[in-house]
Amino acid sequence: MVPQWLIEKKRDGNVLSDDEIRTFIAGYTDGSIPDYQMSAMAMAIFFQGMTPQEIAVLTDAMMRSGDLVTFENWPRPTADKHSTGGIGDKLSLMIAPLAAAAGLAVPMISGRGLGITGGTLDKLETIPGYDTRLSIDEFKRVIDKTGCSIIGQTGSLAPADKKLYALRDVTGTVPSIPLITASIMSKKLAEGADTLIFDVKCGRAAFMKTESDAVALAGSLINVGRALGRKTGAIITNMDQPLGRTVGNAVEVIEAIDTLKGAGPVDTRLLTIELTALMTVLGGIYPAMDIARERLTELLDNGAALNCFKQMVEEQRGDCAVIDDYQKFAQPGATLEIKADAAGFVQDVDAEAIGRVVLQLGGGRQKTDDVIDPAAGVDSLVQQGDVVEPGGILMRLHAKSDALVAAASARAAILINETPPPERQLIIRKMY
Amino acid sequence: MVPQWLIEKKRDGNVLSDDEIRTFIAGYTDGSIPDYQMSAMAMAIFFQGMTPQEIAVLTDAMMRSGDLVTFENWPRPTADKHSTGGIGDKLSLMIAPLAAAAGLAVPMISGRGLGITGGTLDKLETIPGYDTRLSIDEFKRVIDKTGCSIIGQTGSLAPADKKLYALRDVTGTVPSIPLITASIMSKKLAEGADTLIFDVKCGRAAFMKTESDAVALAGSLINVGRALGRKTGAIITNMDQPLGRTVGNAVEVIEAIDTLKGAGPVDTRLLTIELTALMTVLGGIYPAMDIARERLTELLDNGAALNCFKQMVEEQRGDCAVIDDYQKFAQPGATLEIKADAAGFVQDVDAEAIGRVVLQLGGGRQKTDDVIDPAAGVDSLVQQGDVVEPGGILMRLHAKSDALVAAASARAAILINETPPPERQLIIRKMY
Repeated sequence: MVPQWLIEKKRDGNVLSDDEIRTFIAGYTDGSIPDYQMSAMAMAIFFQGMTPQEIAVLTDAMMRSGDLVTFENWPRPTADKHSTGGIGDKLSLMIAPLAAAAGLAVPMISGRGLGITGGTLDKLETIPGYDTRLSIDEFKRVIDKTGCSIIGQTGSLAPADKKLYALRDVTGTVPSIPLITASIMSKKLAEGADTLIFDVKCGRAAFMKTESDAVALAGSLINVGRALGRKTGAIITNMDQPLGRTVGNAVEVIEAIDTLKGAGPVDTRLLTIELTALMTVLGGIYPAMDIARERLTELLDNGAALNCFKQMVEEQRGDCAVIDDYQKFAQPGATLEIKADAAGFVQDVDAEAIGRVVLQLGGGRQKTDDVIDPAAGVDSLVQQGDVVEPGGILMRLHAKSDALVAAASARAAILINETPPPERQLIIRKMY
Repeated sequence: MVPQWLIEKKRDGNVLSDDEIRTFIAGYTDGSIPDYQMSAMAMAIFFQGMTPQEIAVLTDAMMRSGDLVTFENWPRPTADKHSTGGIGDKLSLMIAPLAAAAGLAVPMISGRGLGITGGTLDKLETIPGYDTRLSIDEFKRVIDKTGCSIIGQTGSLAPADKKLYALRDVTGTVPSIPLITASIMSKKLAEGADTLIFDVKCGRAAFMKTESDAVALAGSLINVGRALGRKTGAIITNMDQPLGRTVGNAVEVIEAIDTLKGAGPVDTRLLTIELTALMTVLGGIYPAMDIARERLTELLDNGAALNCFKQMVEEQRGDCAVIDDYQKFAQPGATLEIKADAAGFVQDVDAEAIGRVVLQLGGGRQKTDDVIDPAAGVDSLVQQGDVVEPGGILMRLHAKSDALVAAASARAAILINETPPPERQLIIRKMY
């Protein structure tokens, strides 16, 4: 099988056979197919697409390019959640322990932030001592003991994806649903969870800008998961506005802990419960979504979820003292309040603009080797529909030394109007 | 300018600016843009195409990636011919000296054969001693003295094309008219000729299978040539059947010499005159095609063209004795006559099949490092419309030791029928 024949076959709109896809990915993984053939293939896939069967085989081949975590004869059902990434999205921090409190085992392997969206690992590492670099054996030990563990990607899981992801980033082949699906699913399937649910973000600060794109991606993720024997579902959620009232790293962990204490912003709490409900229903813990929502609300309010979080942090060598004393997080060198000039309703909070503000403050990464300031970020952020008075705080900026640099763009991200805005539609579509 | 942004721009169907194209090609030439970005860009160009302006700039950038041959204040107008390649296409061997005899200077840089089509260099090198590896200074000296020179590609002309050509070959990005145009034209323009004419082959044994593809390529070549200040024209010729009655290396040179002696097959002579006529008219030697055809017929018949060929061979250290004694060419170890079983009209000679026969006999190259047998090939080949008797020769096969291996496929390439075939349409379209 000559690699360029397969590239030509896909280029001309034909369907690749299972064997052809597996041979191509095996060759790319072992280096016998070079980057320049893979990038041409990726561009051909961008233009010609792939059938559900091709996507499933591509995913399976990429998943099998490395080690597989397995939970055979595990005492609890395993489940994980994946988000396509959004501004202020700290849901993993609550969903993993909440699902664990409900009786699931949650093996969650997360990434770091790049561009305007933050990464779960960057957030967890603001907890002094928290170790995201566990071996697979330690990972399983923590899950066995506490019900959940959140760690970073190891090179041994889906190495083909690691290579292809870096290549796509520099060859204009990122926005392809078959390639996105295979990238997400190969890693998630290698984690071994039986149930996988997806929070597909949709809107101006999301990778998927339109509902139809988001539905297409969600459908593709669900198809592949089911084709490969997993229980899958997706919820498409709005990412025009930031999630919650904090965007950054330590500030988001604090908001997550608040939510695990039964408080937290309404939107954050609502999506935490909704997504975890879907996990627990598909995972066989509860028989229906209504019951799941009720039980999970109790587990948030009675401290059971917080307790799971605390145990996970302890097992991963993090300092649990932060949970009761937020001053133990790294503190910003400079804080600046952005205030309203006049009274009105918050009409719009531009999530993408807020993401860029956080980048400017030092809370994000533009290149993979940039160093993140854990204390940098935004908190006390108003939300659409909030009423503000003249001089009222729209948000607080935290930075190492100079928060003033982002003041103008922070102010411009908030639109205030005399009339109330339409109600915010947090959940766009449920697909399960 | 980040390379992937330019890939994305082209991927999304936008027009690249002159500056963007030049930056990309400069980066690819100096290695700062790696193969994997170039192959993704090439695939994006395959799908999205390029405007005539983009193709002209791409060509110019690739041409300027290396040295440029110049003929400033040269005593004669300069002109060259390029063929897209066909079976039995030995026209360069006659056109260069015929055009020189008519008063043009012909700087012709040719290639080697790969796949079923032969290369002009491989043919010329069957003349003992003929040196295709001249320096640019020697090349110009030979042209100054004899009116023409045919040499091989030097690494210093259009190195960007050399790199891109090899990359396209293994990434499924060959059949793209913008990329084919830039590849052909960047090399041809770097040779410095004022007039460029193209023999665009069309048919089952040509790269362009359909007339509309051939017209599109010819139009693109003409556009770019004109945009970059050259006089250009094209003739689309039929490549369903082989050209002439020989296919191979030494056998083709012998047929070329026959033609330069005023003999040779009718089709070979006709296209030699037609293409050279276009060169001389565009080059300002003759005022009109009719007059050019008349004068060139004289120059073929009176030995003037043969004399130019002889001088060129001498200046390039070849043994001119071959011109008068064909036995001085390398001789085949084995020869086999393929004969007709029954009487009839030759209905069809499958050029592609004949090309494969010559490959099988050792007269071609499948990989760039294959060694060619100069004596291997086919001669005495019947042509469409010929009348054959039972036992009449359809072709003779020449090989090193065993010509029998190709006998069955050789016989299968000839279709004989009781009724005469339609007249062969040698020239499909003239574009000038």
